Amino acid sequence: MRISELAEQSGVPLPTIKYYLREGLLMPGTATSATRATYDDDHVRRLALIRALIDVAGLPVAKVRTIVAVLEDPGPSLFEALGKAIEALPPYDVERRAEHRRARHALDLLGQNYEPGSAAVAHLESALAGLESAGRPLRDDRLLEYGRQVRAIAEGEIATMTVDRAEDALEHAVLGTVLHEPLILALRRLAHQDLYLARSSAG
Amino acid sequence: MRISELAEQSGVPLPTIKYYLREGLLMPGTATSATRATYDDDHVRRLALIRALIDVAGLPVAKVRTIVAVLEDPGPSLFEALGKAIEALPPYDVERRAEHRRARHALDLLGQNYEPGSAAVAHLESALAGLESAGRPLRDDRLLEYGRQVRAIAEGEIATMTVDRAEDALEHAVLGTVLHEPLILALRRLAHQDLYLARSSAG
Repeated sequence: MRISELAEQSGVPLPTIKYYLREGLLMPGTATSATRATYDDDHVRRLALIRALIDVAGLPVAKVRTIVAVLEDPGPSLFEALGKAIEALPPYDVERRAEHRRARHALDLLGQNYEPGSAAVAHLESALAGLESAGRPLRDDRLLEYGRQVRAIAEGEIATMTVDRAEDALEHAVLGTVLHEPLILALRRLAHQDLYLARSSAG
Repeated sequence: MRISELAEQSGVPLPTIKYYLREGLLMPGTATSATRATYDDDHVRRLALIRALIDVAGLPVAKVRTIVAVLEDPGPSLFEALGKAIEALPPYDVERRAEHRRARHALDLLGQNYEPGSAAVAHLESALAGLESAGRPLRDDRLLEYGRQVRAIAEGEIATMTVDRAEDALEHAVLGTVLHEPLILALRRLAHQDLYLARSSAG
């Protein structure tokens, strides 16, 4: 299809598509003449990804570029590529401590494998340290319960992921993170509302 | 105790304590003379709350003031007070749409009671709209599964909450939200890591 048709089909305005092309977020079309190029369904799909990352999740263009680069060249290890792509997602301002003592203890207790240098380990360390400094350290039994419950959620999510094409798996993981995290948090606050209401009417 | 002892016991520097007093985040001590006041364990506890909200969760002072005001005067309905306190927590930039069609459908499906005007409903609407615009609308069966799983987490959290004193319940809810949300998200990303690793070694 022509670029004007791409704009129509994707719902992304033409000037914005040109901007994404210049910024290297959208791959170029196939040149059909010196001034024309043709686009296909991969471009429509990439535009949906870019819009989700920029408009819905609020990612800066530079981070989207990082994710796109991983999608286009995942390298030999899908696991490493997943790590790189997820690393480009917020939160960004997490302090990387030298050892992540609390997080390592927690992950050992949960019996989980992990990439020691990944941002998620730093996020866990920071969450556990925050609980500790607020005088509410997480007890091991509560950690195990959270670990079990959250793992069940993650299993449901991974079950629907196809890994036939690395790019599909990466896109699934990236969108699954930025779009499902706010969903889970909203559902949790609303579950609390429902439970509080039940309590207050019972009491 | 004197203010210098309060600083020592809480680990919060004296000038910072004075700042919190001026800003109305920390309640004044009991005056023992024209220039002296005495502080107690409630002050130590309040300081821990303020530090968690400002240093760990990154809340602006104005939002902490809102929460403190609710803690000090919860009013007749604990449920409404909880709503007001949780409302003061991020994310703040969620658009309030007129009707929240998707969120209302989801909550009806889950059979949950909720406060229609609460920020959490707007968060859910925004998450569901984001999934839709990314071409990945959440299917009802997946919503029901998420709802069930997240509710189990919320039940575990509420079980440990005491509602004998409104202030305790409010503090539990506020800290439970700002400190446990990042914990849950970190655990989820790490569960994905573990599951990806198991998949790649199996494949």
